[in-house]
Amino acid sequence: MAAFWSMGPLTLEVPMSLFAKNRQRLAEKLQEGQVVLLQGGEDISHYDTDIQYVFRQEAYFTWMCGVKEPGCYLALDVKTKKAHLFVPHLPDEYEVWMGKLLTCDQFKKIYAVDEVHYVEDIAKVLKSLNPEKLLTLSGPNTDSGLTAKEAVFEGIDEFTVDNEILFPTIAELRVIKTPEEIEVMRYVCKVSSDAHKQVMLYAKPGLKEYQCESVFLDHCYRIGGCRHVSYTCICGSGQNAATLHYGHAAAPNSKMIQDGDLCLFDMGGNYAGYAADITCTFPANGKFTEDQKLVYEAVLFARDAVIREAKPGVLWTDMHLTANRSMLQHLKDGGLLFGNVEEMIENGVAAILQPHGLGHLIGLDVHDVGGYLPHCPPRPSGPLARLRTARRLQAGMALTIEPGCYFIDKLLDRAQSNPSQARFFNWPRVESFRGCGGVRIEDDVLITEDGVENLTFVPRTVAEIEEHMSMGANFKSI
Amino acid sequence: MAAFWSMGPLTLEVPMSLFAKNRQRLAEKLQEGQVVLLQGGEDISHYDTDIQYVFRQEAYFTWMCGVKEPGCYLALDVKTKKAHLFVPHLPDEYEVWMGKLLTCDQFKKIYAVDEVHYVEDIAKVLKSLNPEKLLTLSGPNTDSGLTAKEAVFEGIDEFTVDNEILFPTIAELRVIKTPEEIEVMRYVCKVSSDAHKQVMLYAKPGLKEYQCESVFLDHCYRIGGCRHVSYTCICGSGQNAATLHYGHAAAPNSKMIQDGDLCLFDMGGNYAGYAADITCTFPANGKFTEDQKLVYEAVLFARDAVIREAKPGVLWTDMHLTANRSMLQHLKDGGLLFGNVEEMIENGVAAILQPHGLGHLIGLDVHDVGGYLPHCPPRPSGPLARLRTARRLQAGMALTIEPGCYFIDKLLDRAQSNPSQARFFNWPRVESFRGCGGVRIEDDVLITEDGVENLTFVPRTVAEIEEHMSMGANFKSI
Ligand SMILES: [Mn+2]
Ligand SMILES: [Mn+2]
Repeated sequence: MAAFWSMGPLTLEVPMSLFAKNRQRLAEKLQEGQVVLLQGGEDISHYDTDIQYVFRQEAYFTWMCGVKEPGCYLALDVKTKKAHLFVPHLPDEYEVWMGKLLTCDQFKKIYAVDEVHYVEDIAKVLKSLNPEKLLTLSGPNTDSGLTAKEAVFEGIDEFTVDNEILFPTIAELRVIKTPEEIEVMRYVCKVSSDAHKQVMLYAKPGLKEYQCESVFLDHCYRIGGCRHVSYTCICGSGQNAATLHYGHAAAPNSKMIQDGDLCLFDMGGNYAGYAADITCTFPANGKFTEDQKLVYEAVLFARDAVIREAKPGVLWTDMHLTANRSMLQHLKDGGLLFGNVEEMIENGVAAILQPHGLGHLIGLDVHDVGGYLPHCPPRPSGPLARLRTARRLQAGMALTIEPGCYFIDKLLDRAQSNPSQARFFNWPRVESFRGCGGVRIEDDVLITEDGVENLTFVPRTVAEIEEHMSMGANFKSI
Repeated sequence: MAAFWSMGPLTLEVPMSLFAKNRQRLAEKLQEGQVVLLQGGEDISHYDTDIQYVFRQEAYFTWMCGVKEPGCYLALDVKTKKAHLFVPHLPDEYEVWMGKLLTCDQFKKIYAVDEVHYVEDIAKVLKSLNPEKLLTLSGPNTDSGLTAKEAVFEGIDEFTVDNEILFPTIAELRVIKTPEEIEVMRYVCKVSSDAHKQVMLYAKPGLKEYQCESVFLDHCYRIGGCRHVSYTCICGSGQNAATLHYGHAAAPNSKMIQDGDLCLFDMGGNYAGYAADITCTFPANGKFTEDQKLVYEAVLFARDAVIREAKPGVLWTDMHLTANRSMLQHLKDGGLLFGNVEEMIENGVAAILQPHGLGHLIGLDVHDVGGYLPHCPPRPSGPLARLRTARRLQAGMALTIEPGCYFIDKLLDRAQSNPSQARFFNWPRVESFRGCGGVRIEDDVLITEDGVENLTFVPRTVAEIEEHMSMGANFKSI
């Protein structure tokens, strides 16, 4: 039977051939004589204690081999296309604490790699491959500003190391998802969609936001086998919906949900390392007010426009502007804004209401790599500078589409005191929206040959949401 | 209204006076002219990405002030007894992402400290206190072998720093819980007990172990407001019950529970930093076999003996031996062992069946500090070396009592080939237990003036467990 990883019956079986294919794609881009070396993640202790965070593997390492354990290395010999996995040689005593230790042969079968050795033998084994160059990974993460951690081991000085070739090559390969990867993304997005639907059945005024977060986490894990979510759940209700990264330590989703609140819940599961990133916005009491409906439909209108227009060859920056235009036009039609939509955009009105970009690449990282590689359009200046990529779309890219409209005091104040922006706002109307938070609609999509495949399956129109929420009595029927 | 922290209605309100009292207790042990300086924890990124782990504060820092945010410092001036909190000065722009930024005055009210400054002013403020000595924290964690991270800041060179006085003083204070701390421990143990009871209602053959883990996490968070658990959940069924730290990345609670399995679930919530650590063992199908009952009751017998005998003045090492004796006697009565119990202990038979110590101090760390401070009995050699403390019990100590009996191939093989141990085992009987896993019963208790208060409320006898599990249809009635 072909090797696969899963969390048991009813969860997706991820074939190890997914990772073998990634290695093959990489080898085809490199030269004989080169040996790729990646170092996997290590356990992280909770400060100086003997308690560790639940381990999550590093994304490039996962892409190369899918190995779940800390403390490993992976080498890919371009000449032979053989994958060598290096695993820690744990003391026999660990068996009492960790269970039967896997032999190298067992690791080889589990991960379907060509050879498995102990980490202590890495210098010797690599030397036997006689590489002209060891390729290690070093390059900037353009979302965080941090740098990928290069592989190191005792004895690396004796090799010729190149840390420039690998990063742009592998990052570019990660941008285009294979059919095998797309299957995993379909699964994690479906599980996360279902979890959002459970939350919408459960949510109501009088609950605390984190109780909804807990329902999401439980569904992802218990039903979908997702031990991790891809990022800290953002569960903002009422005014908190306007705090874009709500949910952090100082604002831990702990407000009580009020009658009349909109809930903006941005949450995504993680399966086999692959991320979902979905936002649903809905009225806590199950029924939109006219004002809420206006803003919601402005954002939905923007999402629909992007889904209609996105396809290979289109610039992501143009999609961002498409979303801006649609939303601003809808808000203008609804009486919140005045004037010419193109002039609004020129004057930065869009970024007052939606200070973030339209979306981002998604894959093994929720903000996936490859947004600004050397061969790609550089980060724009001006209002588009916040975009996480300015690339032209290609089939096989996976992205989020996440337009939003928020009433953020700080930004509204700024617009109000800036005549070039203030003139577009119908201030008496806009003032009445202050404190109501905001709306975001976030789908995970795949760019296909001629358009997009939406991987997200949640109620989206006002009618769909109101109908779904009316079935709240069905909560936990699974 | 007095300042408190909680996760909203129906969760415990933790008064900030709890931390003020800790500071006062510390100041009383120190000298005028000394200024204590602790540095809190920092956010941890997921590798080079812009995603962070959900922040958890460091335990000594929590003990001093209960502050939830990363990037802070706390100074305590012994002369004035004033607490100075230093918080990061975040750029105004962060408001869009993090919500309204708290002013220093707001921090002062929330945490009920005397003064709040920005971290950038720390050197200036500390200089104004004119300390003879800055006391920083440095010392060994005797469970992990790691060292507490000392406070550092730009300009610390200009102070006289002492990193030896503080550690034993504060660690010793953490060992004895105040009434305010005990209230929090009662709460987190009650929430965790209830979560275990939910899991026992839910568990059945055909489920995967992690589905039970998810039910536990959901109850702790959704009902109890515990965003974190105190350690990775150990959810071993069948043979996995004999893997003491099951649940890690390479063994992620992913086995399917079988009819006839024992489930050994070691899980504890965390509230306001305070830990619970509770283990329940029960038959997945709700009914003990005679063999399972024998082993279970041997362990329960050991727990009961310790609860009966533990009180101020008693040595923890003696409690460990009490547990060993009770368990071995019960197993002998049941026909698994032969011979004299004292001789079994002398020959290391107890550690074949229970390779871990009886329990550990518990508090802001699940394996709490203070087990082997300089003024305490040193770590024993021989069979007691695994104990996490050898101290004499005092009122106000909180500990786990967690005897266990496991059938671990590696250790049984070792005993079988060691004549001084092999003679005590009824091998044909013992062989029939191989593969069945094991039993652990873990309670969190408080040492009182004349005995113990058990903070754990779960079904413990065979009859209680079977009766509770027969009510499985009530699962999720909350
Ligand atoms: Mn997103
Ligand atoms: Mn324990």
